[in-house]
Amino acid sequence: MALIVQKFGGTSVANIERIKNVAKRTAKTFDQGNDVVVILSAMSGVTDSLIEMASRITPSPDKRELDVLLATGEQTTAALLAITLQSMNYPAKSLLGFQAEVRTDCSFGNARIVDVGARRIRELLDNRNIVVVAGFQGCDPDGNITTLGRGGSDTSAVAIAAALNADVCEIYTDVNGIYTTDPRICPKARKINRISYEEMLEMASLGAKVLQIRSVEFAKKYHVPVHVRSSFNEEVGTMVLNEDAEMEGVVVSAVTCDMNEARIVMKQVPDVPGIAAKVFTPLADEGIVVDMIIQGTQSGEKNDLTFTVPRTNFKRAMEIENKVAEEIGAEEVLGDENIAKVSVIGVGMKNHSGVASKMFASLAAEGINIRLISTSEIRISCVIDEKYAELAVRALHSAFGLDREE
Amino acid sequence: MALIVQKFGGTSVANIERIKNVAKRTAKTFDQGNDVVVILSAMSGVTDSLIEMASRITPSPDKRELDVLLATGEQTTAALLAITLQSMNYPAKSLLGFQAEVRTDCSFGNARIVDVGARRIRELLDNRNIVVVAGFQGCDPDGNITTLGRGGSDTSAVAIAAALNADVCEIYTDVNGIYTTDPRICPKARKINRISYEEMLEMASLGAKVLQIRSVEFAKKYHVPVHVRSSFNEEVGTMVLNEDAEMEGVVVSAVTCDMNEARIVMKQVPDVPGIAAKVFTPLADEGIVVDMIIQGTQSGEKNDLTFTVPRTNFKRAMEIENKVAEEIGAEEVLGDENIAKVSVIGVGMKNHSGVASKMFASLAAEGINIRLISTSEIRISCVIDEKYAELAVRALHSAFGLDREE
Repeated sequence: MALIVQKFGGTSVANIERIKNVAKRTAKTFDQGNDVVVILSAMSGVTDSLIEMASRITPSPDKRELDVLLATGEQTTAALLAITLQSMNYPAKSLLGFQAEVRTDCSFGNARIVDVGARRIRELLDNRNIVVVAGFQGCDPDGNITTLGRGGSDTSAVAIAAALNADVCEIYTDVNGIYTTDPRICPKARKINRISYEEMLEMASLGAKVLQIRSVEFAKKYHVPVHVRSSFNEEVGTMVLNEDAEMEGVVVSAVTCDMNEARIVMKQVPDVPGIAAKVFTPLADEGIVVDMIIQGTQSGEKNDLTFTVPRTNFKRAMEIENKVAEEIGAEEVLGDENIAKVSVIGVGMKNHSGVASKMFASLAAEGINIRLISTSEIRISCVIDEKYAELAVRALHSAFGLDREE
Repeated sequence: MALIVQKFGGTSVANIERIKNVAKRTAKTFDQGNDVVVILSAMSGVTDSLIEMASRITPSPDKRELDVLLATGEQTTAALLAITLQSMNYPAKSLLGFQAEVRTDCSFGNARIVDVGARRIRELLDNRNIVVVAGFQGCDPDGNITTLGRGGSDTSAVAIAAALNADVCEIYTDVNGIYTTDPRICPKARKINRISYEEMLEMASLGAKVLQIRSVEFAKKYHVPVHVRSSFNEEVGTMVLNEDAEMEGVVVSAVTCDMNEARIVMKQVPDVPGIAAKVFTPLADEGIVVDMIIQGTQSGEKNDLTFTVPRTNFKRAMEIENKVAEEIGAEEVLGDENIAKVSVIGVGMKNHSGVASKMFASLAAEGINIRLISTSEIRISCVIDEKYAELAVRALHSAFGLDREE
C-alpha cells in the first residue's frame, strides 16, 4: 500500500512489445494495492530523429519551437501506454507536462523544474487510476512547452515523486543498477546495493550515465528514495538514499572513468593580479565549462596554468587561448585530447585518511603518470593518459576492495 | 492590411520541402502587411499511421488516449513550420490547441468547438508575429486534449477566423477550388467563383470532400468568408459567402455524386402505429445514421419501407433489420450496395420551378431508373444504380448549363 513512481527510459518503451511489458509491470505493482504513477521517455531514437528532422530545415532551429517538436516523443509513448493499460482493463490516464503541472523556467531545451503542482495527479490517484505522465517536458510561466534536456525524464520522475511525497521513485533502465565501476571496463565490477545521494552526484557528474545529475540533486533535496533497476528482470537494483552508518563503513564505493575531457596547458603565464580572469572569461563567454584548474607553483614571475574542458569544445578553446596567450604574453599553449579522468568516490572518505596516497601508490605501481589531481570531500580524481584508463580503473577497483568475490 | 487565416492540409505539409513552400506563401502574405494566422493539419498519412500503431495494441483504443496520440501529428507540423519561418527570419510562434484556447466539448475523437478564446493569438499578432496553430485539436473543460474528427483542421481554421473576426479564412488544398462537379467524372466541370454557405453545406454533406461540413456551419453562423484555393499555385479559388443576388440568378450551381451509401428495402411492413420506431431505433442504438427514408404508398395494410445507410454499416444494418423484420412480421429485407446518389444543388432553386422535372427528364432520357428521391429547399437527390453514376452526372451537368465553354 505504497505510492510508487516508476520511470521507464527509451529502450524500455522502444516498441509496442516493450510497452506491453511495461504495462504488465505497472499493472502488477498496481494489483499489489499500490498507487502507481508512471513517467515515460520517448521511444529510443525518436528524440534524435526529431532533432534530425528540424536540422534538415536549419542547423540552429528556434529553441522554443524545437521543444514543441520534441515534446511529441513522450506524448506518443504516454498515450500508447495508457491505451495498453486500458486494453488490459486497468484504469489509466495519461497526462502531459502542462497537465501534470510540471512548472519550469523559460530555458527552452534545458529547462529547470521550479515546482510540480500535481493536483491533477492526486485527483486521478484518489480515483484509483494508474497515472501515466509524459516525462522530459514541462510548461513555463507563460504556458509555453519546455523540455528538460538529455535524461530529463529522470528529473521529471523524481520531481513528481517529491511533489507526491512518494514512498519510492523507481528508475527502470537497461542495466541492473549502479555498479562499482563500468562492467565493460572491469569484469569484476559489482552492483552496489545502497549508495548515498552525494556519491551518486559525484558519479553522475563524472560520466556514469545512469541518472541525470539534476534528478539526483532533486532526490537529495527532497529526500526521495530512488531505486535504480532493470526493466528486463525482477532483480532488486540499487537504492539511492541519504547516507547512513552502513555506507560510511565503506571507504570507497565506486571507481569512475571520464574520457570526455581534454587538457590545456598555458606555459609561462605572467603572475599578475587578474590574469586568471583574462584566461577563463573568454571561455565562459562561449559557454565552455572548465572543470579542473591547476596553477603550477614554479618559482619566479611566471607560472604554468593547466585546466580541462569538454573534449567537444577542445578545438574552440585552443583557438581562444592561443589569442589570450598572445595578449597576456604567455609562452605557448599546449593541448592534449587523449586524457582520462579516473576517480574514486565514497562518503566513507570523510572519516578515513590515506585514501589519496593509496590511490597514487596504486597508479604508480602500474607505471601510470598523474597529470592533474583534484579532490572533493568524497572524491579524488586523477587525470592520466587515455591509454592507461582501463588499467587504472581495474587497479583502483582491486586496490580499494571492490572486486566481485569469485 | 487585413487579418488573414490560412489553413494548409496534410498534402501541403507532407514533407520538409512542402513545409518550406507553405512558409514562403505565408511570409509573402505577411510581407504585404497583413496579420497572418496559419492553421496546419498533420503530414498526410501521419494520422492514419498513428491510428494503425494504436490498433496494433487493441482494436478499440481508449478514445481519450487516442486523441493524445493523434494530437502529436499537428503539433509536429506546427513546430516545423514555425522553425522554418524563424530560419527565414520571420517572427513565428506555434500554439497548440489548448494554448490557442480552442475549447471543445468532451467528445473525444469527434469533439465540437464550443468557443475560441484567442487571447494569446491576439497578443502575438499585436507583436507582429506569424502565429502557427496546430489544427484538429482542442481542450475540454477539464483540460483534456480532444480532436475534432476527420477534416477537423478546417473547423479549427474557421472557428479561429470567427473568433478573431478575420477578413478571410483561406483553405489551401490540392485542388483549385470548388467545382460544379467532380472533374474526374466530368471533364467539363468548371471552377465555381462564388458559392453560398447553404450550397456548400449541401455539397459537403453529399460527399464533396473539400471542406469539413462543420467548418461550413461555423462559417455560416459567424459570416466568415472562406476562400478555398490551391497551395500549389497562385490562382484565385472559390469564395464561400452569404448568398447574394448574383448567386440567386443561377438555378443549379453544382451536381454531386455520393457512392458511399447502400439501400435497404423492407417489404410488406404492417401499417400500424409505432412501426417506424421499431425499424429505426435498433440502427440508431448502434450509431448507424439513416439518410433517406421512403415509405411506399401501396394500398392495403402493408407498405414497403426503403431507406439508405452508409455503405460501411450495410452488413450490420442488414443483420439488424432481418431480426426486426421477423419480429414485426414483414415479408423480407432486400439490400443493394451498388447505388449512387446524384444531386443538383442551387440557391436559385428557391425561386425557380421545374428543376425537379428537368432532372427526372434528363435521367429518363439516358434510360436511368430512379430508385429513391429526396429534396431540400436547395437540393434534389435521386438514388440510381451505381453503374449509371458517371453518365447521370455528365447528363445533369450539361442539362443545367454547367458545362465549361469550349
